[in-house]
Amino acid sequence: MTGTTQTLAFIRIPGVPLVEPGADLPGLITAALRAAGDIPATGDVIAVAQKIVSKAEGRIVHLATVEPSLRAQEIAALANKDPRVVELILRESRTVIRVSPGVIITEHNTGVILANAGIDRSNLKGSDDAALLLPADPDASATRLRDQLQQNFGVRLGVIVTDSIGRPWRLGTVGTAIGCAGVLALNDLRGQPDLFGRQLQVSEVAVADSLAAVAVLQMGEAAEGTPLVLIRGAFGGDDRGQTARTALRPTAEDLFR
Amino acid sequence: MTGTTQTLAFIRIPGVPLVEPGADLPGLITAALRAAGDIPATGDVIAVAQKIVSKAEGRIVHLATVEPSLRAQEIAALANKDPRVVELILRESRTVIRVSPGVIITEHNTGVILANAGIDRSNLKGSDDAALLLPADPDASATRLRDQLQQNFGVRLGVIVTDSIGRPWRLGTVGTAIGCAGVLALNDLRGQPDLFGRQLQVSEVAVADSLAAVAVLQMGEAAEGTPLVLIRGAFGGDDRGQTARTALRPTAEDLFR
Repeated sequence: MTGTTQTLAFIRIPGVPLVEPGADLPGLITAALRAAGDIPATGDVIAVAQKIVSKAEGRIVHLATVEPSLRAQEIAALANKDPRVVELILRESRTVIRVSPGVIITEHNTGVILANAGIDRSNLKGSDDAALLLPADPDASATRLRDQLQQNFGVRLGVIVTDSIGRPWRLGTVGTAIGCAGVLALNDLRGQPDLFGRQLQVSEVAVADSLAAVAVLQMGEAAEGTPLVLIRGAFGGDDRGQTARTALRPTAEDLFR
Repeated sequence: MTGTTQTLAFIRIPGVPLVEPGADLPGLITAALRAAGDIPATGDVIAVAQKIVSKAEGRIVHLATVEPSLRAQEIAALANKDPRVVELILRESRTVIRVSPGVIITEHNTGVILANAGIDRSNLKGSDDAALLLPADPDASATRLRDQLQQNFGVRLGVIVTDSIGRPWRLGTVGTAIGCAGVLALNDLRGQPDLFGRQLQVSEVAVADSLAAVAVLQMGEAAEGTPLVLIRGAFGGDDRGQTARTALRPTAEDLFR
């Protein structure tokens, strides 16, 4: 590719309405893309915010219906959080990794390590009593979305379900791929030669997470939030059997839990 | 911003030659941008790979000149690494955080926590004996580059010095901003209202790191590597006094060392 200018574009797509449980999400996304005049081409990747996937899948829990366990109450006291929210965090998680005031870091049931099990209480109608859980299986959500969008547009696409995730040693959240289909999670360059023919040492690149980072930046998070970004030039369409889970470090290799 | 399509484009710029110590890096970058016909506009951000910044700054050490300390030899045995490389890692670092076979995780002198102090032995001429260190002060490198590029093009720009960094719980590296000038490290949305007027809970977004992630994806890392990416539509030019160091989590808030 040396010698050529090459562009990767992140196009923010307006026009997705507020999503209600049971909504036809592929239909809403298709309509928004058509209305914006941005018809996906083969290899494009469509990034969708976790929030609208979760809402369409009805992953909303009303806190009045949640009975916190004794363990949830104990952890809530340490973390200074609503025991009902902590109960949801525990139900959504395999393991608690750290508890500190304001934050509970767990391994989510999907294997992702993140704060508060990704439970969100912003941007929900009647949100004082409602919590939004992550999709139960974000890779499956991405696959369903992809199948329908490929059918609607007649091209091979990638789909990423994004979330904003914190990092242990750096401030600020970054968009991360919690679900994907038709896009590489990891591009393994190990063993390829460098400019001088020497083998590269460490070169497994987190492709889907990198794309998700800028997609989420383009989405915005406050009142102007737009949950849909079209990524053009990303060589999507082929995932070599990888999903977002491919990017999870096996517990046996984890030096930090 | 709702209702408008908005594009953020990552343009891979060819034509940067192999960089030698003492090279005029702003001059080489300016020439490559002009030759590609991609003249930076106000607000554009220019992402530059750490490797060429380090090379231009002469941060190359020949291993034959390195005398490993006793501590370096002990850690080298645990990590199964060349004791001379370990000696360089220790000199470049404030603290050793984890040692395991093949990897030494430290807090680099810049405050960044990463593997092997960011020392690279790929893509160096005569690389069997040479190691490339990170720039001594990547924020200062970014500032110098920015000053010269702004002068050359007569517009306000941002500059990011990128590196590929691993993550504790996820596989694959992601591009990260180890130096920046004229671009926000963190965009603090906390306190802003969400779609329903409720205050957002956690919304400090790592802007420069997110941009770096896709910039590095566009650069590529193997033989076809291109160390220069122009980011258009990124609202660069104003950093509100932030640098890459702004994104480092204070040690007192670190739950994972």
